[in-house]
Amino acid sequence: MKRVKISNNVIRRLPRYLRKLDDLSYNGVDRISSSELGKQMGLTPSQIRQDFSCFGEFGQQGYGYNVEALREEIATILGMKRGFNVILVGTGNLGHALIGNFGFKNHGFNLLGAFDVDPKMVGTEIMGTHIYDSADMPAFLKQNKVDIAVLTVPRRVANVTAKAVIQCGVKAIWNFTNIELDLDDPDVLVEDIHFSDSLMALSYYLSESMEQATGANQ
Amino acid sequence: MKRVKISNNVIRRLPRYLRKLDDLSYNGVDRISSSELGKQMGLTPSQIRQDFSCFGEFGQQGYGYNVEALREEIATILGMKRGFNVILVGTGNLGHALIGNFGFKNHGFNLLGAFDVDPKMVGTEIMGTHIYDSADMPAFLKQNKVDIAVLTVPRRVANVTAKAVIQCGVKAIWNFTNIELDLDDPDVLVEDIHFSDSLMALSYYLSESMEQATGANQ
Repeated sequence: MKRVKISNNVIRRLPRYLRKLDDLSYNGVDRISSSELGKQMGLTPSQIRQDFSCFGEFGQQGYGYNVEALREEIATILGMKRGFNVILVGTGNLGHALIGNFGFKNHGFNLLGAFDVDPKMVGTEIMGTHIYDSADMPAFLKQNKVDIAVLTVPRRVANVTAKAVIQCGVKAIWNFTNIELDLDDPDVLVEDIHFSDSLMALSYYLSESMEQATGANQ
Repeated sequence: MKRVKISNNVIRRLPRYLRKLDDLSYNGVDRISSSELGKQMGLTPSQIRQDFSCFGEFGQQGYGYNVEALREEIATILGMKRGFNVILVGTGNLGHALIGNFGFKNHGFNLLGAFDVDPKMVGTEIMGTHIYDSADMPAFLKQNKVDIAVLTVPRRVANVTAKAVIQCGVKAIWNFTNIELDLDDPDVLVEDIHFSDSLMALSYYLSESMEQATGANQ
């Protein structure tokens, strides 16, 4: 597929479309118009048409979108059909939760294994995922082509761990450590999940609504 | 403080500014120009000035921003000085990780307690946070003014749990259950953390960079 440069805002909306389409599909909806989809997602129909037009034509004028076909298109665009290989480093509570509940497989990713330094964890399994000794990670990464490393280590070892996986050729890091990684390699992609950003936004909207309520009572 | 309607994009950038300012402060930087701040954050100076202008004047022309003062202003705008009270519902691995590692206190939030249905958890503590029986939640919420409920329960009970806390007067939900809550109350604020959205974006960018590399080799 030929790609043009797509704006980050569009990229960030694609997973939302995907979730919505999964939802529609689950509920037996075969076809949906851009206006109905927009209504359900809080977007304008023209916004939706514009987003999808970045990737070619998905719908047919007057017929709406085929839910399943659109879902497949978006999944493909998002790289979910590539079967990316993933490892997870750090099997504390958060790592444990991701292995157990995230559903890498359902999202199209192969979780090849997890790594930890804790002797009590090494050699065990979480929901079928083997926990290896972190010391064996370089050898593992030589033997297995790994695309993405999930970083759920304590923050004090976040940077050194990131550098270690990069040195072994991993090109993408999903970073849960809540620090900004300081890496030298401009080719490495880092996606941070900052829990705090989300809580701050909620806190802002709550403050705002409380002020409005106070204003209304005066 | 008088507020005007601020765009969501600006709100979503404020926590990033805050993290950056924390970082600068930690590294002993007292003052920073909008151009330097922009450089470090990948934003244009005019974007930064425009963002801050939504809330009044923070900097002085030619002198840059006072890091500490700007940090305090943004923290105030984000509601971090209000001392919002928080409970967490569901102390599985993810709930456990949040209680243990997130640092509610450092972010200005009071975590009053956590709730679970598991008899093995009830009555225990995680890092000083008491785990109560979920059955006692309504009574607890009557006795304590709680602003935000963190939802880390299994998804099959996500909606019923959300409705239960809302019925007890909680107005904001930080939702980690990965389902879209279906609530009737339009006054309730819900902030979702969708882990998958973030991994999808990373997957997209990784696909894109692989295609570029393939293209370059042809």
